[in-house]
Amino acid sequence: MRISQLSGETGVPVATIKYYLREGLLHDGRLTSATQASYDESHVRRLRLVRALVGGAGLSIAAVRDLLGVVENPPDSGHDLLGFAHQAVIGSEVAPVDIAGVDSMLGDWGWDLDGCDVAAKSSVAEALEGVRSAGFEMPEGVLDTYAKAMYEVAAAEIAGVPTESAESAVRYVVLGTVLVEPLLLALRRLAQQSASHERFGARPLRP
Amino acid sequence: MRISQLSGETGVPVATIKYYLREGLLHDGRLTSATQASYDESHVRRLRLVRALVGGAGLSIAAVRDLLGVVENPPDSGHDLLGFAHQAVIGSEVAPVDIAGVDSMLGDWGWDLDGCDVAAKSSVAEALEGVRSAGFEMPEGVLDTYAKAMYEVAAAEIAGVPTESAESAVRYVVLGTVLVEPLLLALRRLAQQSASHERFGARPLRP
Repeated sequence: MRISQLSGETGVPVATIKYYLREGLLHDGRLTSATQASYDESHVRRLRLVRALVGGAGLSIAAVRDLLGVVENPPDSGHDLLGFAHQAVIGSEVAPVDIAGVDSMLGDWGWDLDGCDVAAKSSVAEALEGVRSAGFEMPEGVLDTYAKAMYEVAAAEIAGVPTESAESAVRYVVLGTVLVEPLLLALRRLAQQSASHERFGARPLRP
Repeated sequence: MRISQLSGETGVPVATIKYYLREGLLHDGRLTSATQASYDESHVRRLRLVRALVGGAGLSIAAVRDLLGVVENPPDSGHDLLGFAHQAVIGSEVAPVDIAGVDSMLGDWGWDLDGCDVAAKSSVAEALEGVRSAGFEMPEGVLDTYAKAMYEVAAAEIAGVPTESAESAVRYVVLGTVLVEPLLLALRRLAQQSASHERFGARPLRP
């Protein structure tokens, strides 16, 4: 198909397609004349993935380029592939945070992590530090509840990772991680209102 | 105490205290001369709350002013008080979203919500729409897992709401809602890595 048809098929403007071609996010078509190239289904699929990563997940062009390299030459281990997808979302810049406290919590929770997950551990350490430095004290046991609930969430998500191709797995992990975040937070607020209704009903706060 | 002592006690610069006084976020001190006022413990407490709401939770001055009005004249029902706190975080501008789908899910989940929670329901509807419009399909049953996990989170949080004063309850709800969000998301990503390690280990993605 010609570039205009590729655009029609995917809803991506021709100018944007040309930009992705220049940036190496989309492989060249087959040249049919000096000025014209022909595109196929592989371009449609790739273009949809790029749109989802850039538009849906909000990744930078550079992060998408890195990730596409991983999709094309997937690492041997499935866990490593997901690790790359995760890294694209979290970013690889790790602030120098003390993660010893996080490591000790993970031991208590029995989470199965190898030494390479420093970025994700640091995010947890930073988030905990943010809570503490604002002077907010979590009630006893609530952090463990958070961990348990998030593990249930993650286990269901990882069980659903499609395995038919590296492309589909990466798409699932990146989009799922980013797009579901607002959903989880919105569900939490709605659940809080329901739980508050249950606890306080129309009763005054002070007994 | 004088304003300089109030500043020393709370770590809030004198200029910021004066700004809060002008904006009505802090009640006036007792005038001791034409140009000097005296402040007490109630100012320390209020200033700490304002700092937490503005700095920690990132609320606007207008939202904090509204919320302080609620703290001073708390509604009769504890649930309504938490509703006001929630509204300050979510914002009261509700986009015209179709929440019928959300209402029907809530029925399935058995959540106890009255008709007034339109803003939170709309956030859920919008988040679901965001997931769908990016072409991401959640695996069967995962949405129910999200709801169940978020209800566990919310129930533990609401059980911890302090009831000794409207001030402490509002502080808890607003700060807890906002500050804990990055923590939950970071825990989810870390849990995903652990679950991925468990599912895929060092095995290649393709069986």
